[in-house]
Amino acid sequence: MEFSKGHGTENDFVVLPDLDVRLELTAERVAALCDRQRGLGADGVLRVARAGALRDAGVLASIPEGVAADDWFMDYRNGDGSTAEMCGNGVRVFAHYLAASGLESRERYVVGSRAGARPVVVHESGPTHGEVTVDMGVVRALGASTATIAGWAYPGIGIDVGNPHLACVDRNLSAESLAKLDLTVSPGYDPDLFPLGVNIEILTPLGPDRAADMRVYERGVGETRSCGTGTVAAAAALLADEGFDLAVDTGEVTIRVPGGAVAVGLEAGAARLRGPSVLVAAGRIGEQWWNGF
Amino acid sequence: MEFSKGHGTENDFVVLPDLDVRLELTAERVAALCDRQRGLGADGVLRVARAGALRDAGVLASIPEGVAADDWFMDYRNGDGSTAEMCGNGVRVFAHYLAASGLESRERYVVGSRAGARPVVVHESGPTHGEVTVDMGVVRALGASTATIAGWAYPGIGIDVGNPHLACVDRNLSAESLAKLDLTVSPGYDPDLFPLGVNIEILTPLGPDRAADMRVYERGVGETRSCGTGTVAAAAALLADEGFDLAVDTGEVTIRVPGGAVAVGLEAGAARLRGPSVLVAAGRIGEQWWNGF
Repeated sequence: MEFSKGHGTENDFVVLPDLDVRLELTAERVAALCDRQRGLGADGVLRVARAGALRDAGVLASIPEGVAADDWFMDYRNGDGSTAEMCGNGVRVFAHYLAASGLESRERYVVGSRAGARPVVVHESGPTHGEVTVDMGVVRALGASTATIAGWAYPGIGIDVGNPHLACVDRNLSAESLAKLDLTVSPGYDPDLFPLGVNIEILTPLGPDRAADMRVYERGVGETRSCGTGTVAAAAALLADEGFDLAVDTGEVTIRVPGGAVAVGLEAGAARLRGPSVLVAAGRIGEQWWNGF
Repeated sequence: MEFSKGHGTENDFVVLPDLDVRLELTAERVAALCDRQRGLGADGVLRVARAGALRDAGVLASIPEGVAADDWFMDYRNGDGSTAEMCGNGVRVFAHYLAASGLESRERYVVGSRAGARPVVVHESGPTHGEVTVDMGVVRALGASTATIAGWAYPGIGIDVGNPHLACVDRNLSAESLAKLDLTVSPGYDPDLFPLGVNIEILTPLGPDRAADMRVYERGVGETRSCGTGTVAAAAALLADEGFDLAVDTGEVTIRVPGGAVAVGLEAGAARLRGPSVLVAAGRIGEQWWNGF
């Protein structure tokens, strides 16, 4: 049972190469593996296999549109063992792993996900450091709304990046004052606009370097050091703040999160996310340990 | 750069076999390795080498009394990169690793630590599960004192197990009410008796099965799922509660912590700690990654 451990802007993953789809990824096993004391510890698991092999093994009921049977597929599992559609930071680590391990030599190809095809460009793929751009698909504005933190209102914009976001640019916020915000409790939001909850980004305005600082509160999780779709929503809000038309215009900004920095490009309603990946270690998980769950 | 990852009652460690003492364990590298997002993640690092090799390499200024040059030595580092004298849960994982990796085949031998010799008995050493007893050395009562949690006083006994503890048995506490205590803030204690701070254990009384439930707040850390010396202090307090004379009497109790259960034996002021060890995974740390710190 081989594994690699890596992270994208400190969103960390256990990568499980499983080309023959032999692993039974029960929720219990994934949760034990991701448990930071009992297991290896990670935010999520990335199983590596071809889309067709995952379909043939019954992991996928069908292959999502735009993904071919022989495309690589990121079978993503959350730390609690549930499946997730997509993870922008995870795709970078996934593509970096494929190159670093010798499984893939192309610079451009499609990574399949439950949210559909995610084309990647692998710019760098050393044994430790990688740099990858991921097509993040369609970005859609949902209209103005407001987050509330400790009694203060933060006006923002609802953004759909496959999952719902409320990205709030505060022109009075500096990197220092942003760092002091209390995000230990869930910010308030409008439950009519976001009936299933929402991920909330708080942002400084864009600086002259076309970069902004961001903190993110992920629904059901709490504050995290990075959120791929959150940085895309943040970029859309920052550009909208400058009068950018999301459906038509082209722009690029850098988003600094607590775990690092990424570059987001927006072009006529579609997003690209470019950022680092780090592979830390690799080895084998004890079979007896794994089979104990 | 080989490693193993394991835990003793969910106190988890990265084990680094380094028999030739070639690794430079700088505080930065250890902290990066123990960082749960950026690194492998662990409460601490256990370097595996012989005492003489560590002295010859200058890691130890001298070999502690009672430890021979060819004894195994647990070079323990905290998650922040600082050294620590001893770790009761770490010694079990250390001895389990030695047996499971084939480095040691004896059942009884001495593990050296900065706190001195720690004789072990390896009862079980499978590829995943181990069971080890560790001699924990001298236990000394420091007198009565009181911890305060959310305005409530918890009378207890100060116990020195190489490090200071305040173990409080509350006869009105059940496992359920213990689980509800708020240990997110540091309990209050008498700074005159504990000028360097204190680890605080809150305990249910001993049940008819000679077992009690415990939660622990470690100084400088916060609540943890387990603390080896804390379970020894807890056992001393539980037995004192029954009129036990620590300096003379012999007794054994089971302590259940959030991370599992251990058995503590006390005999004329000396303690033994018996408990489980789990080895989860093994592999190699990226050399480029390691050298980046």
